[in-house]
Amino acid sequence: MTTIVRADTMLTPAGEVSPAELEIDDAGRISYAGTPRSGSIVTHDLTGHALMPGLVNGHTHGAMTLQRGISDDEGFMPWLAAVQEVEQGLTRDDIVVGLEVAMLEMIETGTTTFADMYHWDAGLLELVRDAGMRVLAAPAMSTADSVAFPGVSPLTGAEVLDETEALAARFAGDAQIKLAYGPHAPYTCPPELLQDIAARSKRSGIPIHIHVSESRAEVAQMTEQYGRTPAAHLDSLGFFEARVLAAHCVHLTDDEIEVFARTGTGASHNPVSNLKLGCGVARLPEMLDAGIALTIGTDSVASNNSLDLFEELKLATILHRGMRHDASVVSAAQVLDLATRQGAATVGFPETGSLEFGKLADVIALDLGRTSATPRGSLASHLTFSATGADVRHVFIGGQHVYADGEHLTLDAPAIRERAHAASARLRPQT
Amino acid sequence: MTTIVRADTMLTPAGEVSPAELEIDDAGRISYAGTPRSGSIVTHDLTGHALMPGLVNGHTHGAMTLQRGISDDEGFMPWLAAVQEVEQGLTRDDIVVGLEVAMLEMIETGTTTFADMYHWDAGLLELVRDAGMRVLAAPAMSTADSVAFPGVSPLTGAEVLDETEALAARFAGDAQIKLAYGPHAPYTCPPELLQDIAARSKRSGIPIHIHVSESRAEVAQMTEQYGRTPAAHLDSLGFFEARVLAAHCVHLTDDEIEVFARTGTGASHNPVSNLKLGCGVARLPEMLDAGIALTIGTDSVASNNSLDLFEELKLATILHRGMRHDASVVSAAQVLDLATRQGAATVGFPETGSLEFGKLADVIALDLGRTSATPRGSLASHLTFSATGADVRHVFIGGQHVYADGEHLTLDAPAIRERAHAASARLRPQT
Repeated sequence: MTTIVRADTMLTPAGEVSPAELEIDDAGRISYAGTPRSGSIVTHDLTGHALMPGLVNGHTHGAMTLQRGISDDEGFMPWLAAVQEVEQGLTRDDIVVGLEVAMLEMIETGTTTFADMYHWDAGLLELVRDAGMRVLAAPAMSTADSVAFPGVSPLTGAEVLDETEALAARFAGDAQIKLAYGPHAPYTCPPELLQDIAARSKRSGIPIHIHVSESRAEVAQMTEQYGRTPAAHLDSLGFFEARVLAAHCVHLTDDEIEVFARTGTGASHNPVSNLKLGCGVARLPEMLDAGIALTIGTDSVASNNSLDLFEELKLATILHRGMRHDASVVSAAQVLDLATRQGAATVGFPETGSLEFGKLADVIALDLGRTSATPRGSLASHLTFSATGADVRHVFIGGQHVYADGEHLTLDAPAIRERAHAASARLRPQT
Repeated sequence: MTTIVRADTMLTPAGEVSPAELEIDDAGRISYAGTPRSGSIVTHDLTGHALMPGLVNGHTHGAMTLQRGISDDEGFMPWLAAVQEVEQGLTRDDIVVGLEVAMLEMIETGTTTFADMYHWDAGLLELVRDAGMRVLAAPAMSTADSVAFPGVSPLTGAEVLDETEALAARFAGDAQIKLAYGPHAPYTCPPELLQDIAARSKRSGIPIHIHVSESRAEVAQMTEQYGRTPAAHLDSLGFFEARVLAAHCVHLTDDEIEVFARTGTGASHNPVSNLKLGCGVARLPEMLDAGIALTIGTDSVASNNSLDLFEELKLATILHRGMRHDASVVSAAQVLDLATRQGAATVGFPETGSLEFGKLADVIALDLGRTSATPRGSLASHLTFSATGADVRHVFIGGQHVYADGEHLTLDAPAIRERAHAASARLRPQT
């Protein structure tokens, strides 16, 4: 059945279209995006709303919602240790509910696609498919003989890579589910393993999602151990000959930025997490100038503590202006593009991310009746600087209505929240 | 009538109290704050909510909601020119509706007190009183012979000072309305005028609200013109012998921070505005270490573009951590204190700002049933890093219930929003 949505205004690659009509065909693709046509049979009258593409979270660990608010006033390394201590007690059921909470929160705040690194198996991927979302899922591992999630899976690191390939084969052609290899970071994976993964990736076509150059401690450790900064080390191993999505990239040198640009390596910018953990501020203006494939991410709620990408949109736009004393270095429109069209392409879903003919219809509708939209400037200005995830009222993914007027249609929100509170109470001491 | 509120938990100076009971006497003061007592007749059962003090916005220009989203991608000086161009067309009715929108937005997001600099007259102050809010209102002026708001008021700068004193006398003893002199900034007010205002302030006891050291351009201009940085210039004029609230303070030197601490001069930290306009990042850790009287502000929506102080809380906590590569430099609890207890004292309402016996009952209730609170860490962690203004469901100011389950009880929200859209359409070209 054809879906026709009307709204006050709509963000398209050609600019703001007001008033707006969006038609979605029965394959979930946009068959019209423009001003209202006479004779249209409107199925969703969203007067008072703005339409925009669903947001793309370029780096998160969704299931870590259960670790929200742990060691909030600690720096990166002690924080990581505290989080990993809690993770020793995780069961697979905990990961299920953690992921479900993350999907609730992402959908409620307008995210339709996420690039994730954590424990993943077929059942968890099916949960994402059933929720209607899209994921680039990277089963996490570190050293070849380690077991990343001891309470969850008996697989060693090398076996996780085999499992990643098996999952990629199982979900081949799925428009919602894609796999990536998930080596944690250059400082937790030995060079031989990284080379093996790059070779696998070139062979299989499965991309790689990895943390790179997140903290100064990492840079210092890598420089001492290998005589090279993290991305230079990866480059020396031929790692970037594979298709790589590198998270954080806070401390990239000019040379490393050039390597990213030349090799088509993607980078996710996660400003909230990087600030909160004291990691620093990535060089977004230089990465934009270099033409790197970029995306915006929240990181996990354990270091954020929210999955609301609208916060990242605003911060990614204003942060670098303040740091450089120059309001021209990053524009609202640029960051909106990173969080939608460019972000979608960077995480492997190029058929989504913009409201235009032929794209898959990942669309969110925000309430313009809020005081925070009274009055507003341009739609790009409103979406970047004034809107929040709480304004999101409707979410369509591939044309499927997953969130309608603030109600979940694919997930049982009350039951999930109840199970999450119970799991959290078991996992951590009273706070 | 005595009001008794019960909730799941409550932020008090002694820490988190769970479960919570708050009793408000018929003078609007807190007569009990603790765990539930047997036999209490509960008037507001807010199960599923957290109570905290109402937030204090230490620097804004409320009525500028009509200028939301103007020149969003410009730096400070061109942005200021664009805003002032729109202000040429302002009428007093515009200022009324702009202020009303601001009060809607502040109440909805949990702000109960604001320090404001703009056009103020008796009628506008009565609007604030009728809305139930508290304000430290500074009628703005720059040079002695200028007319700050030509379409609104024929008063020259000097006459504005007289009017400020007349308003202070008229509202003397009002628990909601306090006045401040509002000289715009050291770079827009000549030294003689600043000295006159300081002398008036010492005589009248009326404090001063002024912008100080906001942009590098200001520092350069002052240094060239007077051979001193902005705060050093003010200090050389004896300005800080008066009680001063200085907004922004982005570029204070060590010596200037010492002057602030020694003279008891207050400073408001406005990180979103300072970043967005490319002004820079104030030295909050040094100001905290020096023991300066601090407060957190949004600045106007023209440079933010939101009045949701929860955004500032999170940013003020994480920003300096990232800049210094050290997560220990600012804690969630410190910033929460600046936005409540300390902020209230800094802007002249020391009888508010914390939930404890004897204080005026400025209290907000946040919904803990949201996914973003599923699960949560400590209450301070939740309020700083995960909560947003959209979680606020109830607001009490001096015991008066002004916002109940998301509905305004003192302001006609739909009518105000409609008038604001009409005024905005008249004031600015199609965006």
